[in-house]
Amino acid sequence: DPQSGRQRAFIRWMLTALLAILSEILCVVIIACTVELQALKFDTTLKIASHRKWYTSVAAFFLFLTFSLLFAVVAGVVTLLQPAVGGSGMAEVKSYLNGVNLPHVMHFNTLYGKAVGVIFAQASGLPLGFEGPIVSCCAILGSLFSQGKIWGLERRLSFEDFRNDKERRDFVACATAGGVAAAFGAPIGGVFFALEEGASFMTLKLTWRCFFCAIGTALTGYLLLSVLPPEFVNQLSFLDPFPNSGPLYEQKDLSIFAVMGVLGGLLGAAFNQMNRRLTVFRLAHVTTPRKKMLELMSLTTLMAVLSFGLPFAGRCRSRPQLDTTTGIYSYASTLRPFLCAGDDSYNELASLYLQSWDDSLRILFHLPMHLQSGEPVFSTAALLCFFCPYFFMAFMTFGASVPFGLFIPSLLSGAALGRVVGQALHPLGGFAEPGVYALVMASAVLGGMCRMTISLALILLEATGNMNLLLPLSISLFLSRWVGNAFNESIYHMHIHLRKIPFLEPQCPQEARVSDLRVCEIMATEPLCLHPVDQVGRIYELLAATAHHCFPLREDDCTVFGTISRDILCSLLFLKAFSGEKSESVLRDTSAAVVTPVLPYEKVEQFFPHFPSIATICLTESEKFSWIDLRPYCDTAPYLVTESTAVPRAYRLFRNLGLRHLLVISRNGHLSGILTRHDLEEEHLMASLAHSPMLLSRK
Amino acid sequence: DPQSGRQRAFIRWMLTALLAILSEILCVVIIACTVELQALKFDTTLKIASHRKWYTSVAAFFLFLTFSLLFAVVAGVVTLLQPAVGGSGMAEVKSYLNGVNLPHVMHFNTLYGKAVGVIFAQASGLPLGFEGPIVSCCAILGSLFSQGKIWGLERRLSFEDFRNDKERRDFVACATAGGVAAAFGAPIGGVFFALEEGASFMTLKLTWRCFFCAIGTALTGYLLLSVLPPEFVNQLSFLDPFPNSGPLYEQKDLSIFAVMGVLGGLLGAAFNQMNRRLTVFRLAHVTTPRKKMLELMSLTTLMAVLSFGLPFAGRCRSRPQLDTTTGIYSYASTLRPFLCAGDDSYNELASLYLQSWDDSLRILFHLPMHLQSGEPVFSTAALLCFFCPYFFMAFMTFGASVPFGLFIPSLLSGAALGRVVGQALHPLGGFAEPGVYALVMASAVLGGMCRMTISLALILLEATGNMNLLLPLSISLFLSRWVGNAFNESIYHMHIHLRKIPFLEPQCPQEARVSDLRVCEIMATEPLCLHPVDQVGRIYELLAATAHHCFPLREDDCTVFGTISRDILCSLLFLKAFSGEKSESVLRDTSAAVVTPVLPYEKVEQFFPHFPSIATICLTESEKFSWIDLRPYCDTAPYLVTESTAVPRAYRLFRNLGLRHLLVISRNGHLSGILTRHDLEEEHLMASLAHSPMLLSRK
Repeated sequence: DPQSGRQRAFIRWMLTALLAILSEILCVVIIACTVELQALKFDTTLKIASHRKWYTSVAAFFLFLTFSLLFAVVAGVVTLLQPAVGGSGMAEVKSYLNGVNLPHVMHFNTLYGKAVGVIFAQASGLPLGFEGPIVSCCAILGSLFSQGKIWGLERRLSFEDFRNDKERRDFVACATAGGVAAAFGAPIGGVFFALEEGASFMTLKLTWRCFFCAIGTALTGYLLLSVLPPEFVNQLSFLDPFPNSGPLYEQKDLSIFAVMGVLGGLLGAAFNQMNRRLTVFRLAHVTTPRKKMLELMSLTTLMAVLSFGLPFAGRCRSRPQLDTTTGIYSYASTLRPFLCAGDDSYNELASLYLQSWDDSLRILFHLPMHLQSGEPVFSTAALLCFFCPYFFMAFMTFGASVPFGLFIPSLLSGAALGRVVGQALHPLGGFAEPGVYALVMASAVLGGMCRMTISLALILLEATGNMNLLLPLSISLFLSRWVGNAFNESIYHMHIHLRKIPFLEPQCPQEARVSDLRVCEIMATEPLCLHPVDQVGRIYELLAATAHHCFPLREDDCTVFGTISRDILCSLLFLKAFSGEKSESVLRDTSAAVVTPVLPYEKVEQFFPHFPSIATICLTESEKFSWIDLRPYCDTAPYLVTESTAVPRAYRLFRNLGLRHLLVISRNGHLSGILTRHDLEEEHLMASLAHSPMLLSRK
Repeated sequence: DPQSGRQRAFIRWMLTALLAILSEILCVVIIACTVELQALKFDTTLKIASHRKWYTSVAAFFLFLTFSLLFAVVAGVVTLLQPAVGGSGMAEVKSYLNGVNLPHVMHFNTLYGKAVGVIFAQASGLPLGFEGPIVSCCAILGSLFSQGKIWGLERRLSFEDFRNDKERRDFVACATAGGVAAAFGAPIGGVFFALEEGASFMTLKLTWRCFFCAIGTALTGYLLLSVLPPEFVNQLSFLDPFPNSGPLYEQKDLSIFAVMGVLGGLLGAAFNQMNRRLTVFRLAHVTTPRKKMLELMSLTTLMAVLSFGLPFAGRCRSRPQLDTTTGIYSYASTLRPFLCAGDDSYNELASLYLQSWDDSLRILFHLPMHLQSGEPVFSTAALLCFFCPYFFMAFMTFGASVPFGLFIPSLLSGAALGRVVGQALHPLGGFAEPGVYALVMASAVLGGMCRMTISLALILLEATGNMNLLLPLSISLFLSRWVGNAFNESIYHMHIHLRKIPFLEPQCPQEARVSDLRVCEIMATEPLCLHPVDQVGRIYELLAATAHHCFPLREDDCTVFGTISRDILCSLLFLKAFSGEKSESVLRDTSAAVVTPVLPYEKVEQFFPHFPSIATICLTESEKFSWIDLRPYCDTAPYLVTESTAVPRAYRLFRNLGLRHLLVISRNGHLSGILTRHDLEEEHLMASLAHSPMLLSRK
């Protein structure tokens, strides 16, 4: 009734608000732990190294290496225990929102493992970010939370209303928006991120809920600021604001931004192409836990050697006394005096390598060309000496068995490169500050890898807090996307395809659109069907023999009665909801409009989302001869199309309504086939095109 | 083939880029003309009034009144000539994107009339804005442009590819995003605006095209800045940036922002409620052109009297010498010295009333509490003396027969009220500047009227250029929306419903969702059908007797062959595409898979979008006995549902796929009814619910 509907809506909003608060707290906790671990590592080692003897340097290095390996081991072990923990999780969240359920992705263990794993992985000094994993942690939180799972109150509170696929997916979408809001400080970017992938099921109402969740997260963050210790507050923001008091760039800069976009696209495409080969190699050769661990240890050691070793080649530069009230003071104060005489000088390379990556990014973005007249803050050689090893290591790390985010490493590589360009142009006069070039190039490199245009522009725009940057960011992102797409697909989609996830792209593949392919040419014919009232033994055998998720119910005259899901069938068998033995006449009388079910529907659905598997069900011989009336539990009006429907139209139904299967009927209403997501994948469509007799005859 | 597909895609992007440039130019031209007309009016009258004699004041007033009436007459006449010019056009654009074609809305005359009308309406001094009409001008431009209409090259260039409903709607969506980008300086807000209404057909690709168009518009605007005269550049921006160097508000301000949101919701709901009554009254009584003109003249006269008369009650305050380099100098310099002794003082009320409304808004937002120590810039009495008459007049004007935008009047009312609150809190210490309160209250009042949350937050956020304002704006907009929705619907939807437009809300009405209503209970039964091969006379009579847009083709065994649209049928009759006389046996042989059409499809579609009407078609008696083979022209695989489908599911199909009609079949494939948008309107659903025999029996 309407009353309970309103009540449910209210609870839904309240849960969303709570989810927003929890997301922000989760994010803050992860960041806080990471900051503490990193501080522990850098403070102790740099303190020892500050004595500037050869043996203190050696001791410091080994301490540094020990810390790095120790942290990497923790991250690696967690990932080995639960493989779903590895990676950024963005691909998994995208797939889930697209309508694909992947095993283990939304489990509590994954959340826990990801949170712990990313803290230690980040602290180990590998070139990876924690933003992506934080977003997917929040998404998992959303999934568990909506089920009442994280309360340990699964069966008690009234979470039953939300224990279904649709509600769960909606909560995950909200949580994703909240996660982006928390990790990047970009609420609107979060909404757009959820929207870009969730276009298949996004309603205006859900968009508002996502926005509400994202704003709630931002509000929680804002309120937390006054509670948290001030030295920690700086670390919470992904990027710092660029001032909006004056123009940050001029018209002539726009063409340079465009060039940077093209360059970023090329770099990103190369990264993706190489990473694809590396991933294929990894899938083939790095298969056992031991090999994975060994790979991780080697990468960590190499990175530690580079991070600690390269600063020995860096030059020391003098640091001027800055007014503590100016904005750049806080950035200049994080420059590292590693191996230098006294605190009034700093080591160029140590300032980039021996920091948390976030801090390195901040000084590249926000420090001006010169701190004092004369030499620039970073020499071009130092920047290149940072970029090349770092980019290479980021490429090697992407795919290792730890949780890793793509944003920080790609932004940081791009920022170093962009600053090189900015510094080269600076003497020519009248160009923008190198930090602006660093930002634009950073966005171009990231865009070239992950190809998200609008949501990425929004995330960077919100993080930098300056609306004037929209134009430069959009130009570089559009171009990097176009250039990148000319070569290959985004890194997320690449990994989705390598893992053979039936992800539906927003648009039907071009070939199917132009070739006039029909549904009857790609569907699975003669689908395995049940009767509206069927024998238990038959159902059991069907379930045991196949892995299909959905079965059509067909009447004797071949017309469709409805569909029923595997989950419901298993639950019915598990709960022994048999109607007893029936005569043939009763069995065929499916005309009665309303049938009283043996079990109420809530009882059948109670197992969600972990329904009993067919392997756990034991039936006696007499039970197998019982009958079961499926009519009260089935969907009597499934979506259907006729055989002659064009494939793009069926594709649109799948994508816009988030379908998983679609019945195909002949003109006279007889069931003639069934379509699933796999039938609509590009590979399958291409194969059907090649073999289509109808198309061949048309040619 | 794929080659031409890629070429078409390229042309599409190019056209979108051109559209972006044209949208910006159109917007700049409209603003430039308005600024010139307003300057003419204010400069001449204020110059005369500056002599400060009683007779110069009287002369100035009559000149002021003459100008106002003159401008209002032009705007009124344009609107009377083409009624679609009236209003903001936002409701029409929303409806078009929702899938409803309204007559005259997308015509060239409407574009022309709207552009001229809004310039003069704005200059007449009525409390209205030009942003809404500019957006709808851009939308019309998009529609015409995609058809090659504005080039006079309709038949020559290769625009045929884009001459269909889908492409046209896509271009309108892009142009809408571009229009918002141009009028409000809010590209992302524009994309979201198009998205909110266009959710029914929005693909990721189209979203990118909208973004591309919006960014293109912004880029054009940025490049134009260096060409345009500098005194005009200030007028181009909708709002000015709020500085992001320091915090604009504190934590304790948030609760006040929340209260303002509630207040704004109440005020907006009251506005809508009263305006609804006024509109009903107008529809009943202000019907003839003479009455409409008289109403407009009275409103203009009243507004002129208030604008010119109230400043006589305003106090003169001294204006301090300000440093020309500070940000507030430019705002302080627009304060009016009306009736005051010398330029070093200003009249409070004249500064609000005798300005363009944009300038009034800017000074309310950006001037600090005090220009010098002592008295505030505006007294509370002056602000209230501005708010009350202005709000009343805005309410009266909304619905008059001129083009009018809602944004400026509602923002300005809210800003005045918000500044009152801010000034009242200021002595208590530690609160934000009154300008921030003005902005938040302004957004709350606007949100209370039009209930757009995300797109509105984005528009205001981008216009103010400060990301820190996201939190205050979101809080106030969310609350104003919730509070407002508790009372009534948004002003746009109110006008859509008063005009009986079959607009589909994002979600199926609550009642249909909870009552288990089935499609068979709301559909039109026994639809008027044609045969796949039918007699010309029968088709003619059917077309002449009904106004239906779509006819099912039914085979003799009652199964569905396909659907055909009225437009195609009319074209076929107009072009006399008859297959000649046929024997019964040939007629019934519909088994042949491919039929060669008498006319190629392009020929039939050539009339788009103005197909011949049935009234223009004359047939001889012998022609009426000819047969026509409809099979090559019909849609052989229309979307269909079974009778027992739940109404919310059918609703989702309509909304998510942008359908206009949906066939209903019985279980054995027989055609049993047809659903249209009208069947899914709330009123019709409620009526079906009341009469549903099935539901009654269930009770």
